[in-house]
Amino acid sequence: MRLKRKDILTIEDLTRDEIELILSTAGSFREVSEREIKKVPTLRGRTIINLFYEASTRTRTSFEIAAKRMSADAINISASSSSVVKGETLKDTAKNLEAMNPDCIVLRHPSSGAPDMLARFVKCPVINAGDGSHEHPSQALLDLLTIKEKLGRIDGLKITIVGDIAHSRVARSNIYGFTKLGAKVNVVAAPTMMPMGIEEMGCTIINRVEDAISVADVIMILRVQLERHKVPLFPSLREYSRLFGLDKEKMERAKKDVVILHPGPINRGVEISPEIADGPYSLILDQVKNGVAVRMALFYLLLGGGRE
Amino acid sequence: MRLKRKDILTIEDLTRDEIELILSTAGSFREVSEREIKKVPTLRGRTIINLFYEASTRTRTSFEIAAKRMSADAINISASSSSVVKGETLKDTAKNLEAMNPDCIVLRHPSSGAPDMLARFVKCPVINAGDGSHEHPSQALLDLLTIKEKLGRIDGLKITIVGDIAHSRVARSNIYGFTKLGAKVNVVAAPTMMPMGIEEMGCTIINRVEDAISVADVIMILRVQLERHKVPLFPSLREYSRLFGLDKEKMERAKKDVVILHPGPINRGVEISPEIADGPYSLILDQVKNGVAVRMALFYLLLGGGRE
Amino acid sequence: MRLKRKDILTIEDLTRDEIELILSTAGSFREVSEREIKKVPTLRGRTIINLFYEASTRTRTSFEIAAKRMSADAINISASSSSVVKGETLKDTAKNLEAMNPDCIVLRHPSSGAPDMLARFVKCPVINAGDGSHEHPSQALLDLLTIKEKLGRIDGLKITIVGDIAHSRVARSNIYGFTKLGAKVNVVAAPTMMPMGIEEMGCTIINRVEDAISVADVIMILRVQLERHKVPLFPSLREYSRLFGLDKEKMERAKKDVVILHPGPINRGVEISPEIADGPYSLILDQVKNGVAVRMALFYLLLGGGRE
Repeated sequence: MRLKRKDILTIEDLTRDEIELILSTAGSFREVSEREIKKVPTLRGRTIINLFYEASTRTRTSFEIAAKRMSADAINISASSSSVVKGETLKDTAKNLEAMNPDCIVLRHPSSGAPDMLARFVKCPVINAGDGSHEHPSQALLDLLTIKEKLGRIDGLKITIVGDIAHSRVARSNIYGFTKLGAKVNVVAAPTMMPMGIEEMGCTIINRVEDAISVADVIMILRVQLERHKVPLFPSLREYSRLFGLDKEKMERAKKDVVILHPGPINRGVEISPEIADGPYSLILDQVKNGVAVRMALFYLLLGGGRE
Repeated sequence: MRLKRKDILTIEDLTRDEIELILSTAGSFREVSEREIKKVPTLRGRTIINLFYEASTRTRTSFEIAAKRMSADAINISASSSSVVKGETLKDTAKNLEAMNPDCIVLRHPSSGAPDMLARFVKCPVINAGDGSHEHPSQALLDLLTIKEKLGRIDGLKITIVGDIAHSRVARSNIYGFTKLGAKVNVVAAPTMMPMGIEEMGCTIINRVEDAISVADVIMILRVQLERHKVPLFPSLREYSRLFGLDKEKMERAKKDVVILHPGPINRGVEISPEIADGPYSLILDQVKNGVAVRMALFYLLLGGGRE
Repeated sequence: MRLKRKDILTIEDLTRDEIELILSTAGSFREVSEREIKKVPTLRGRTIINLFYEASTRTRTSFEIAAKRMSADAINISASSSSVVKGETLKDTAKNLEAMNPDCIVLRHPSSGAPDMLARFVKCPVINAGDGSHEHPSQALLDLLTIKEKLGRIDGLKITIVGDIAHSRVARSNIYGFTKLGAKVNVVAAPTMMPMGIEEMGCTIINRVEDAISVADVIMILRVQLERHKVPLFPSLREYSRLFGLDKEKMERAKKDVVILHPGPINRGVEISPEIADGPYSLILDQVKNGVAVRMALFYLLLGGGRE
């Protein structure tokens, strides 16, 4: 089976089979990064553009390393430096980049839907590296890979997501991904952080954090993104931490073999306490490691022998 | 025939034969970017430094892609980040970079003449990627290639340049290039945008835009560079657009098979209307595509087998 | 003999044998940068991360060129762009980068000791590219290589360091290096620039610049780092220049075959006059050239066949 689509824009669009193909491909690329010579020649002579309208060292670095380990040429364009556009529209930027014959454009953008627009404008594959509060599909894929690697399955798991669901593209992508692969997703958050109609995405709201934790096979803690909120969503970080922060006390309610994920970067002592972040349940660094493998797999499936 | 010079600093300096050699070489590199494996091994192990004292994603990306498709190592240095210099003179920066044995330095600088200075200081080839209001030779070369590709010749064409001639390095380089290759150049602009003595460059001033358009085989629209003007050169963008902006109405005077160029990025609705920019006459995206080919050719002719 | 350590954090830690191994290895890499094809395949498929929390084009470029000439993939992360961390601790940044399986991290950081911390957190080699007022070991190594190349030895030389010793990581690393290799180090500076207890590092304070110059086989001029001082350390640049700036007049006291080093970038007319910086005694550009060779050697010895 092969991937029959041009772009990776959302998890919402992907079928269960497509997700599983990506995960199994990523699994086979994981060992490349463990070798002494961390490189396969598959995408030699291909040009991958990382077009980042938001600063994100972590995600950009992961895509750049993935591209280079596939032997592709990676071109970084940062639009936070005022240079990209001089007032140019995204469409014009897209058409101009396309004219340079890239083989793939990876786009991070503050506006929801920007990657979808880009994908309509250009013939080459587009990968959404996070758009506004919409989706961050490669993050959800690496989360799925991490859980599957650790627990052997996604199907039937109970997964609790804690934090600012309303503003989190990570939460949205993961809810789609977990649900499609047969997990049961519970969400818990302050009322200001819980979007209307979230149940329609197939998840269940649980009011008390303790209850949401006690039933979970997997706990996913979201980052408090202070930099994104125009109005404060809670009285103080201390208040947030006491109510929603995952700490030793709250973890006493958790199952013995629970695993914990966080998309990073973590605010230690806010949404997660240091002893939990660094503790035995935490898969945070496995997530980062799997991020490179997932992105190699996406490049392979979209650019390589993998697309029909 | 081979290129007998160390640097590409201006079009003014180049002979007709040199320009034609560059264009024919670029023509042969164009297909490399159309391949699946967009790479030739010609410049493996060479170091090309992109030294940009002005932000320019488009031009920097084009040079970087060109370098990588020639298999060279590209090093980007951006002096808009305060790091480059700490008050260092251009000469010291040049001598220091030279000590690291680069094979070519591509320089974009806000001061006219900076690439010429740099070229005197270093033994390696220097390519001017735009200096102040002086020249932007690789832009003119890609424009020539685009027109030649489309119309089969430059000789004998009537080319109209519309816009801020006085502050445009693109206009200057193109006037030299078009004239050397036998075209007749007409210029039209607001009086504040028309440099004294422009006729000495071999072109003719036409006062009314409509007249300049009606005689043209090629129309080149310049970008309104609001970011460069210390005092406003016209009352309002609306005013500019009405008088000089290329739109459907003005295009009614144009020849049926006219072609339109713009160096980008375009200000839609200011110097060019969207339906014209995206219309059938427009070669804007061909220009971008040819930009990579021209820069590959310059690297080849200055660094590769092409220099005696 | 091989290098038996994971990291290069300080010159203080290195033994004389280790320093000499690095210098002789660097000597053998110097010619790679003189070739037409400036590349050896030694580190193909390795990932080197340049993590710079302070802007430094010169040092970053040198490490990046060194990595690429060893055929490694170089990833630049600049933390002056706000992106790196979003409040993340250095430890979390370190663990996250490690999860992407880099083969080496090069760290420049404003805080003394940061590379030491990083090295404890990650399994891969760490190279200190300058930390606060602490050390800048690759700079000292390139200075040693430059002197040894020119004068044939370090042992027994009299070396005078002029300038802001107290705030200079370059001075500290060099005092350790020169002393370990058997040179005698004299230091001269304004009292506000002379650290307490400097004699314990094995050097001698000389009060008058003229005396310090007249005895020297090597003069190392430090950069006046105006950007680092929270309070002014001297009344004016003119005052500094008159008292400590190396100029033709002061050089009349110097030995006929003295050589002059400066870590760059130089402030012409402040700590060194143009005719001295560009004069026959000056090894400033040799230092830059040797910088690439030293960094290639460090990568080789830490990542390549060179580590047991």
